[in-house]
Parts: sequence; C-alpha cells; structure tokens
Amino acid sequence: MAKLIRFGVSLEEELLKKFDSLLHRKRYTNRSEAIRDLIREDLVRQEWQGDGEISGAITLIYDHHKRELLEKITDIQHHYQKAIISTQHIHLDHHNCLEIIAVKGDAKKAQELADTLRSIKGVKHGTLSMSSTGRNLA
Amino acid sequence: MAKLIRFGVSLEEELLKKFDSLLHRKRYTNRSEAIRDLIREDLVRQEWQGDGEISGAITLIYDHHKRELLEKITDIQHHYQKAIISTQHIHLDHHNCLEIIAVKGDAKKAQELADTLRSIKGVKHGTLSMSSTGRNLA
Amino acid sequence: MAKLIRFGVSLEEELLKKFDSLLHRKRYTNRSEAIRDLIREDLVRQEWQGDGEISGAITLIYDHHKRELLEKITDIQHHYQKAIISTQHIHLDHHNCLEIIAVKGDAKKAQELADTLRSIKGVKHGTLSMSSTGRNLA
Amino acid sequence: MAKLIRFGVSLEEELLKKFDSLLHRKRYTNRSEAIRDLIREDLVRQEWQGDGEISGAITLIYDHHKRELLEKITDIQHHYQKAIISTQHIHLDHHNCLEIIAVKGDAKKAQELADTLRSIKGVKHGTLSMSSTGRNLA
Repeated sequence: MAKLIRFGVSLEEELLKKFDSLLHRKRYTNRSEAIRDLIREDLVRQEWQGDGEISGAITLIYDHHKRELLEKITDIQHHYQKAIISTQHIHLDHHNCLEIIAVKGDAKKAQELADTLRSIKGVKHGTLSMSSTGRNLA
Repeated sequence: MAKLIRFGVSLEEELLKKFDSLLHRKRYTNRSEAIRDLIREDLVRQEWQGDGEISGAITLIYDHHKRELLEKITDIQHHYQKAIISTQHIHLDHHNCLEIIAVKGDAKKAQELADTLRSIKGVKHGTLSMSSTGRNLA
Repeated sequence: MAKLIRFGVSLEEELLKKFDSLLHRKRYTNRSEAIRDLIREDLVRQEWQGDGEISGAITLIYDHHKRELLEKITDIQHHYQKAIISTQHIHLDHHNCLEIIAVKGDAKKAQELADTLRSIKGVKHGTLSMSSTGRNLA
Repeated sequence: MAKLIRFGVSLEEELLKKFDSLLHRKRYTNRSEAIRDLIREDLVRQEWQGDGEISGAITLIYDHHKRELLEKITDIQHHYQKAIISTQHIHLDHHNCLEIIAVKGDAKKAQELADTLRSIKGVKHGTLSMSSTGRNLA
C-alpha cells in the first residue's frame, strides 16, 4: 500500500466553508480525498499540455438528417483513425444523435480532432473531456 | 484580513512528489497557496449547474486491480440504471481502465452520479460533460 | 426425382473469383451444388426463431464511402430506436467500419432490424447474436 | 463500379420456394443480392479458419453480483488487451449485465478469448459473432 504523508494547509475561513459544503454535495467523506482529486485533475491538465500520451472522450450532438453531416463526421474520424479507439452512437430521438468518441494518444491530435468536429456546420454541441492514461497518477 | 484555518491533509508520497514538482514549475512558493487556487477553480466550475434534461458522458480512470473497486463502480451504475444508456470500457494497459458512461435525463441526477463515482477511493480521475438532448438547439 | 429450376445470378467479378477458388478448395465441382448447400445451411439457421424479450448484438461491416450508405444505416436505426440501446462504431481502416448495435426487446423486432440492415446494398457482412435478458437463466 | 458477371444456377423447386419465402421475410428484393450475402458469409467463416486478420463481437450475459465474477471477466480482458478494441457494458436490470466486446486481430485468439469468458462459472450465456475486416470482401 502507498505510503501517506501528512502536511498542514492554511485556508481562509470563508473559502474553507464553501469547500466543505461542496464536498458534502459531492459526497466526499474527508478533505484529503477531495484535495487528492483536485491535485490529480491538475496533473491531468498538465499531461494534456505536454507531449505525453493521454486518453479522453469527445461528445457531439447533431441532427443526422442534415445533408452530408454524417459523411463529414465519419470521414474525419477515419482520417484520425489512429487517435480513436471506438465511437459510441446513441439515437436520442428521431433527429438527434449523441456521439461519444473514445480517444487515446497524443494530446494535440485529440484536441485538433475535437476542434475539427465541433467546427462542422450542423454539429450543435461538442465537448472534449481530457483525461489521463492513469500511468502518471498514483 | 481574512481569518486563516489550518488543517491536516494526507497524500500518497508519490502523488505529493508530483504535486511539488508541478508547484515548482508553476512558481508557487507553498502548497497552501496552490491548493487554495485549485479549490477556487473548482468552485467556479461548480457554479454552472445544468437543469432540465441533458445528455452527456462521464469518464473515469481507475486501476481495475484495486480491491472491490469494480464491484463498487458497477453497483452504483446499476443503481442509477435509468440515467445510464450504456458504458464503454477501454482496457488502457494491464492496470488502467478508461470507462465512458453515456448518460441521459435529469441534469442533477447525472451530476450526482458523476460525483458519487468520482468520490470512490481508487478512482484516479473523473469528468462529466453535459450536453443538451439537441431538441432545444437549432 | 426433384424438379430443378434454373435461374440467373449476378455477382461482382472479384467476389465470384473468390467464391470459385473457395469451391475448388472445398472440392465442389459446380457452383449450383455449393449455392444449394449455402441455402440449406441458412434455412437451418433461420429455423431457430427466438421469442419473447431478448438482448443481443448486431454486427455490420461496410465501406462508409459508399454513397448514401451511412444515411440509410442511421435512418433505419433511428426508426428502430426503441429496440436499440447504443451503437459502437469502430473505424477498421480508411474504408471499412465495424458497427456493433446493442439491442434489447422483442426478438422478432431485433431479427427484423438485423435483416433490414443486412439487406442494404453495400453492407458487406452482418450478424445477429441473440441472448436472453438473463432473467430466465439461473 | 464493380463489373457484374451473370451465370445460371439450378435448384430443386421446393428448396427454391423456401429460399424465396425466406428472402421475402428478410426483405431482399432479388435472389442475386441474397446469394451474394451467403457467399460473403461463407468467405468470412473461411477467414476465421485461416490465419488472417478478423473482427467480431463477443456477447456475455451475467449477474454482476456473483462473487468475483466482475474481477475475473475484467482480468481476462486485460490479459487479452491486444485483441480487444473496446467493451460496451449495458445494465439490463438490477442484476443482469450485457457485455459486448469488440475484437480484432487473430481469429484463433478471439475464439480463445470467447471460450475462456464463456467457461467462467456465473456467465449465463455467451456468443461469438465472427465477422471480417472487410478488406477481403468485394
């Protein structure tokens, strides 16, 4: 099991109150676990700015009836085939699709893919969730 | 001047080392100041709270070898079965998994599910991307 | 002796070449005999017809560059939206896609969806795996 | 466009009747298209018996509450990580899961993985859908 190190942190009283009520809402049982997660998130953001290998997810919302939209979205994904693990497609209703693309590899490539997809006319909304390969997180 | 409160935090030795070297690169002079900033950024992110029906994706990074972690993650998902469409699981390496959960329905429920999953000890990183269902987007 | 009926079949030249070399390896002496066996095997497979509620998967292999193929496949899936949980799309290479559709509900509906998708010109290969929903299996 | 070759086929009258009624049910509009698909399916089965690269899907039905079942299923998948693209997990009800594993690569490895997973005590049902990478199908 990993060795734990204990150290002291000083916070403004009001900030600590807000943090505690957020922890309660988020179902954390202690501050250390919450701070640990904030630190890990910060490390992940750094991985995405560096040259390391990352993983993540791109989400897209679009109307599949829009002319040639499906072709464009699929063409681009085949072009970025090496960055993509697989794509989950959910038929939300008669018109709207949610597409979730699992990505892995170079952070810049993933960012570029997300930007390219989001900029297509007809894509209503797109997000990029930056995550990690887990290897650099304790 | 704001009243400062001091409290203790426990971190895995390896995680703390990475955090310290990140602080050095970011030119922080002490851990409290860096943690204060992470907490403030988190509070800002939480201010945005979706309402109504959403669709989206939760990503999780975890080591599937951690004792009982898989059971916990799966139990919680079955409990929130109505909010979940399907889950994509990617075996990143021998230890690390990327899990992408497609969610649909009430925004608060999705937020609650994401918070519950992220707060599990052993989950290294988690994100929640909320999108609309597309119906209210032209 | 059974009455024989003769009719014409059109095949892509390349596909016919592969079929002929397969017949040669399988030691068939004419195409009619080989096609007769394929049809008989297919009839046997079709005899089993699930009933009641099932869950399962449909797989499709197709070239996403084929004109209007993507639209057709997506339109049909949106039409059968209630039978489909989600669809996993894998970019196999620059041309070929593997699409895996998770289905749930009425067996006949799933069979109908699989048949409709497979019969689309341009879909190279399709399978349907039916399973139970697990409730009636100890 | 691919060149079409036309040739004659002789079938027993009764067999042809059954085939025609099956085609009707399967929504084929002509015999050539149906025979083409039977031939392609046969070629795919041959790929799986050879040494070529294949793709396919494994489905599993299991009760995730069974002791250590989740760990076993996940451990095995991480062990066969190179053969697996991604896994779709669907929470069918409070107990039962449908897991769909997209596989790619060596046919023997995929077959071995399917057999290993199906033989685990607690897995209620498992199927292997053999498909192709599409490269050898016209």
